[in-house]
Amino acid sequence: MCPYADDPYAVSLHDISERFRSCATPVRVRRFAHAHHAWLNGVTWQIANRAGGRMPGLDDYLTMRLHSAGGEPTYAMLEIVNAAEVPAHEMDSPAVTALTEMAICVDALDNDRHSLAKGAARRQTDQNVFTVLTHHHRLTEQQALHEGIALRDRVLVRFLDLREKVMPRAGRELRRYLTDLGHGIRGNTEWALRVPRYLSPRDATTAPGDVTAPETPPFTETPLAEGPPTHHLPTIGWWWDDLA
Amino acid sequence: MCPYADDPYAVSLHDISERFRSCATPVRVRRFAHAHHAWLNGVTWQIANRAGGRMPGLDDYLTMRLHSAGGEPTYAMLEIVNAAEVPAHEMDSPAVTALTEMAICVDALDNDRHSLAKGAARRQTDQNVFTVLTHHHRLTEQQALHEGIALRDRVLVRFLDLREKVMPRAGRELRRYLTDLGHGIRGNTEWALRVPRYLSPRDATTAPGDVTAPETPPFTETPLAEGPPTHHLPTIGWWWDDLA
Repeated sequence: MCPYADDPYAVSLHDISERFRSCATPVRVRRFAHAHHAWLNGVTWQIANRAGGRMPGLDDYLTMRLHSAGGEPTYAMLEIVNAAEVPAHEMDSPAVTALTEMAICVDALDNDRHSLAKGAARRQTDQNVFTVLTHHHRLTEQQALHEGIALRDRVLVRFLDLREKVMPRAGRELRRYLTDLGHGIRGNTEWALRVPRYLSPRDATTAPGDVTAPETPPFTETPLAEGPPTHHLPTIGWWWDDLA
Repeated sequence: MCPYADDPYAVSLHDISERFRSCATPVRVRRFAHAHHAWLNGVTWQIANRAGGRMPGLDDYLTMRLHSAGGEPTYAMLEIVNAAEVPAHEMDSPAVTALTEMAICVDALDNDRHSLAKGAARRQTDQNVFTVLTHHHRLTEQQALHEGIALRDRVLVRFLDLREKVMPRAGRELRRYLTDLGHGIRGNTEWALRVPRYLSPRDATTAPGDVTAPETPPFTETPLAEGPPTHHLPTIGWWWDDLA
């Protein structure tokens, strides 16, 4: 019986936890719990910025967004779904930590882009990579769009490159995990093509899902230029260190 | 070189992290980082309660206090100092998770008690186990003092009991860790006898440390009665389950 019967959110979270506990080891359940702490910290930070009217700089924004995006609990479920636990010395290694963060970063920047049309139509000036770049780097909206996408592409290229280097000496569970981080990046864009939150761009009163995504969305296999330098961004700059 | 040269707090934290990274495995450093996320969540919760004038109920208070007390990063340093890493399947087991939380709980309730004289003299009505009990359980200050101490004693008795059951089948590193959780409980009370924050009880303007702790503080080897029931407190009630 759930001990929090008077709180529907607590009941739901308790239900999820009990299900996970019944099918996954304590290590995996605890990783999921740790991921929640990090996620909630990010969301609290984001809300505090909004309440105080603060637009963070790019490095602070990336630190916050890596947590607030919710990618940590999402990817912590991979091991539970696959029933394949990555050993701690692999999971906590700098390379795998970086790969997980990179996947979350690509997802988060993709989400920023997907919600851009809606945000702009509502004249929102909420925190996203594009408003951060226009605000702090004196870029036009077009320049910020280019820089933000180039940054996202640069991270994805590094993700693919580092993953290829790590794979050959990864154990079976880690290979499964790293493969599924990639599926997560693809899945996130698939999801964005269908989810009501991105398909009612005009204004808040438009019914959800009144815009249809294209049957065959355009795509490219060429990353946008080289992307901006990242060595001045300590949050992500270390991803380009020799980690493999 | 520290990339956060203009922020003295970030410089200090960066310095600590670099030192830990140079002497501890990534698993231990990451446990320390996870502990920080949980700690910061607890502190944010505490500050938000204070800002909103909210006095939490006992179960909420214990959840919050287990994180805000800072015991998680403190005890995460045991493995770093001892150069003895507890394997994940032992560290994340329900029994060891419970023992870590119990040690933190005893420390936190001891701290609540140590700061009680100072808090009362300042007419503070901040959140601690005693103000929570007087506020929500209609207890007098004397009754709340008794109930709070009895709860603390009950947790310590359970800690000692469960630890004794876990020890025989614990590996070398876990035995070291569990032994040092006990040293932490003792060390916390030793510290409280010397630290200025508890030794200037009269008011905020009194110089720190103007009260001397007794040379031989009184102590007892008998826990205070049985302590209040805990089955209605989901945050801690499971510590009495069959975990060994």
